[in-house]
Amino acid sequence: MTATATRTGITALREAYLSGELTPADVAEQVAAAPAPPAVWITKAGPDALRARAAELRRLDPAGLPLFGIPFAVKDNIDVAGLPTTAACPAFAYVPQRHAPVVEKLLAAGAMLVGKTNLDQFATGLTGSRSPYGAVESVFGGGLIAGGSSSGSAVAVAAGLVAFSLGTDTAGSGRVPAAFNGIVGLKPTRGLLSTVGVVPACRSLDCVSVFTRDVTDAAAVLEVVRGPVADDPWSRAADPEVVPPEAVRLGVARPEALDFEGDRGQAERYVAGCLALARLTGAAEQVDLAPLLEAGSLLYQGPWVAERLADLEPFLRDHADQILPLTRGILQGGRRFTAADTFRAQHRLRELRAVTRRLFERIDVLALPTVPTTYTLDEIAAEPLRRNAILGRYTQFANLLDLAVVTVPNGRTPDGRPASLSLIGPAFSEATLLALAAALHGEPAAPAAAWDPAAGTVELAVVGHHLRGEPRNAELVALGGRFVRTTRTAPCYRLFRLPVGDAGLPGLVRVADGGTAIEVELWRVPATALGALLTSVSAPLSIGHVSIAGGGVVPGFLCEAYAARDGRDISAGGGWRAFRKEEAE
Amino acid sequence: MTATATRTGITALREAYLSGELTPADVAEQVAAAPAPPAVWITKAGPDALRARAAELRRLDPAGLPLFGIPFAVKDNIDVAGLPTTAACPAFAYVPQRHAPVVEKLLAAGAMLVGKTNLDQFATGLTGSRSPYGAVESVFGGGLIAGGSSSGSAVAVAAGLVAFSLGTDTAGSGRVPAAFNGIVGLKPTRGLLSTVGVVPACRSLDCVSVFTRDVTDAAAVLEVVRGPVADDPWSRAADPEVVPPEAVRLGVARPEALDFEGDRGQAERYVAGCLALARLTGAAEQVDLAPLLEAGSLLYQGPWVAERLADLEPFLRDHADQILPLTRGILQGGRRFTAADTFRAQHRLRELRAVTRRLFERIDVLALPTVPTTYTLDEIAAEPLRRNAILGRYTQFANLLDLAVVTVPNGRTPDGRPASLSLIGPAFSEATLLALAAALHGEPAAPAAAWDPAAGTVELAVVGHHLRGEPRNAELVALGGRFVRTTRTAPCYRLFRLPVGDAGLPGLVRVADGGTAIEVELWRVPATALGALLTSVSAPLSIGHVSIAGGGVVPGFLCEAYAARDGRDISAGGGWRAFRKEEAE
Repeated sequence: MTATATRTGITALREAYLSGELTPADVAEQVAAAPAPPAVWITKAGPDALRARAAELRRLDPAGLPLFGIPFAVKDNIDVAGLPTTAACPAFAYVPQRHAPVVEKLLAAGAMLVGKTNLDQFATGLTGSRSPYGAVESVFGGGLIAGGSSSGSAVAVAAGLVAFSLGTDTAGSGRVPAAFNGIVGLKPTRGLLSTVGVVPACRSLDCVSVFTRDVTDAAAVLEVVRGPVADDPWSRAADPEVVPPEAVRLGVARPEALDFEGDRGQAERYVAGCLALARLTGAAEQVDLAPLLEAGSLLYQGPWVAERLADLEPFLRDHADQILPLTRGILQGGRRFTAADTFRAQHRLRELRAVTRRLFERIDVLALPTVPTTYTLDEIAAEPLRRNAILGRYTQFANLLDLAVVTVPNGRTPDGRPASLSLIGPAFSEATLLALAAALHGEPAAPAAAWDPAAGTVELAVVGHHLRGEPRNAELVALGGRFVRTTRTAPCYRLFRLPVGDAGLPGLVRVADGGTAIEVELWRVPATALGALLTSVSAPLSIGHVSIAGGGVVPGFLCEAYAARDGRDISAGGGWRAFRKEEAE
Repeated sequence: MTATATRTGITALREAYLSGELTPADVAEQVAAAPAPPAVWITKAGPDALRARAAELRRLDPAGLPLFGIPFAVKDNIDVAGLPTTAACPAFAYVPQRHAPVVEKLLAAGAMLVGKTNLDQFATGLTGSRSPYGAVESVFGGGLIAGGSSSGSAVAVAAGLVAFSLGTDTAGSGRVPAAFNGIVGLKPTRGLLSTVGVVPACRSLDCVSVFTRDVTDAAAVLEVVRGPVADDPWSRAADPEVVPPEAVRLGVARPEALDFEGDRGQAERYVAGCLALARLTGAAEQVDLAPLLEAGSLLYQGPWVAERLADLEPFLRDHADQILPLTRGILQGGRRFTAADTFRAQHRLRELRAVTRRLFERIDVLALPTVPTTYTLDEIAAEPLRRNAILGRYTQFANLLDLAVVTVPNGRTPDGRPASLSLIGPAFSEATLLALAAALHGEPAAPAAAWDPAAGTVELAVVGHHLRGEPRNAELVALGGRFVRTTRTAPCYRLFRLPVGDAGLPGLVRVADGGTAIEVELWRVPATALGALLTSVSAPLSIGHVSIAGGGVVPGFLCEAYAARDGRDISAGGGWRAFRKEEAE
């Protein structure tokens, strides 16, 4: 194996391990020796620790561990037992005795920890330059900032020091650095990844995020780290629905409604990205961003800045001079808000969330630029607060509005700077976002397949009164169903017209001999709606498994065979619609 | 019809209307003439308005209107178009142009508005004595307070001035007055009833509540007023599950863990009430109240008092001298809390909610006394703040912890004072609480039946691998299923052993002739789990409708008839369990 092993993604590394081409010891040596760009690491595991981990892994079965031997980095506001957690403030540092549950899950899945990464102090900032451990530069060079606050974690992935890393995200810290380094940033739904063992920024908004070089890897890491953690009061049960890319209802912004700060290159990339997405989804709707932008302004100009004080107030009181002046100023700004201010802002947020919920009843995914423009370290130093706020323009509303986001590279501007697209969906839409992101990047794997099918949607075959234009079709729509396509069953069924009601009741019966193919419609419905569909019909109808022409089996309406005796075999026409048409003639 | 028409409940009034025994005009005259106890009404509809409403109703069809001609009252912090909304503060009063949506729904259902009722000013207080319109006395007399803040609405129902009334409830205002007047108080889940058009107390906690004289009436009113309202950001979609009384897992407090302020009569009534409940549910678990009581103390001693300022701050600033001194002092107390205090308290509440969520995974209903003890008007006047806080001890945590409560009369103490039991459940458990309350009171109607069955639970017949002790039984349990009973199908089925797997696959097939009764187990499962159950099995199994011996049809596992051809008919043994036993011998 060459020295570029760690530049490879999880899938390729995994194949190399399983084939025996690579051992954890090889990777341990490589990551130990890899030279890092300046200021990326706050604490790096030494060669001995890496070798010890490799030796541990050697005794385990790679096949059973989804992240066996995969090197990763952790932002230094997330606890790793035995290593200091600094939050980029040396006076604040402590050595935790326990891993954060997200770290614990990664290690249990076989991953190899390489180190703790630099960040904007207390995860406050989007620039990657607010750290006593040094300002971090983008892998694109030219003095471009790395973006923050998860600056080190993003560069560690982009520079190939690790295959993936953990960041955190309150206002965009897991997305802005992905945009500045040309990688994938997954900002999951609040509560999907546990924040136990994470230094709080705004507890009610904080998310652990994932950086990878491709979408498939992000899905693989999510699969390991997601899920409720006992005794984490912020954990939420997931109820994922998956919308396949071709069925996604896409929302975009009118380019002239966006403010790119005059950066024409970024504006052009946004339009190009939306066109590529629309080719996958088929259509797009223009969305009014005003409620989202208003929610974002609540975060930076409203009382949520005081949420940072909820935990840091004692430290700020006793160690004010050991906090960076910029960060200190921001924290102290939280003191000017009262309890009544807070409730007023929360009431307004509730209204904006309701508007957003209605938006995401019309669309599945909203595509926005991740950042309006890019800045150099010098530009940020010249106007640190104003330009920081500009960087958060299209990210900072997401956590307040309970949204999930996958940030993906979106080519380069004509002058060679990275561009990035954020695919934004409602809570627990990760599988939909990842599938669309993978399709956009031409990645083969459909990450959605990794999800529990029972919790998502299923295709349902309908054969009679539930067909489009028929009397019960509205029930499918009301239950969240969407038409997929018209097809036929495998040639092993008969269709009967049972003498129920004026129109008769169509019933599909599988037969051992003499079957034929019957026209059905496939509808994508939430799996949880099958119960309502079943109880809305009576015997002899049931919901079973219908074999489809050309292969595949989907849930579908069936009829018990005993009842067919009283019915009329109408299979000859090929389906209920043909029979009805014939009848009408 | 006698002059006691309005002392009758909704059901009896409705029957009298439908039979023609009574007309809206009769009821209008009665309610117009009915003498009210002091201080109950702030605004009462005049005889002309009541006659006009009766004339309107005369042109409508009683059968189609569930509350046709039913007289009701509205707490005077809820908007009724054209009548002043005072919130018991004359300087605050305004005349709204639109009804609150809950009032609109009641009127659209045919109800007859009699007037607006007295309350503790700005719904701040649990005594019913903090109003410039006068202190309200309980219908039990003896100088007993009516309880508040919905004092007038509770007395209007208890005194028979109306059949039902609306209150509001932030800390117990819809329950404490029910307890003091021997009636039913329903405090629904936050967001189940719209709070649009309600003067805010704590917006994030406020609920509209319902007072009635029996449980069936409360269910009938709930059915009309519940449900999301467009543009109400606090509306929440309901996802009700119904647990029948006999299946309820009951939680109770150890009497010595409760503080009745030395009121032995109330303590005895609590024990008696719990015993009566346990006779219905079969068993009870003792519950640790500490997290609930801590949440309650956050409300009264923590920053939520400042939530009242979020809306009232401008009025308090400009009209401080027109607010009752006691109420003014409470509102001004909100000024001492900062934004950071608020976030800290909300973080703690989040933890307590997580504890409560786990509690309600173990139990379905927690029974507590509604109030620890009772007070007279003189006793409250002597210690208005301390005794007010005592009254809220077992009510004030409910809205913070996202609980639903039905408060029911629980007999009288030996000295004749009313006692009351609160049945407390998780969000959207109203149907379960109402069904248990109805059973406790020996009311015939099962209010649960009024709910949408598709959204609740269903009984499922299982016949093979899902039976208790069989390999797939754990799936039923994991999906929230509960064993109900073992029974048999109607005598029209055959059971086959299909050659699938070592143990074989049992398949139930309905036949036109020669059927027999097959042993099945009935399991109560969430309707939403049927989809997961279906997709966890393969063809030829389906979920259809199974006829049960003695009548009734329930969802259940079936087998497609074509597959039975390859199977062995094992019906003779009567069921899968008998067959397995025979096989083992």
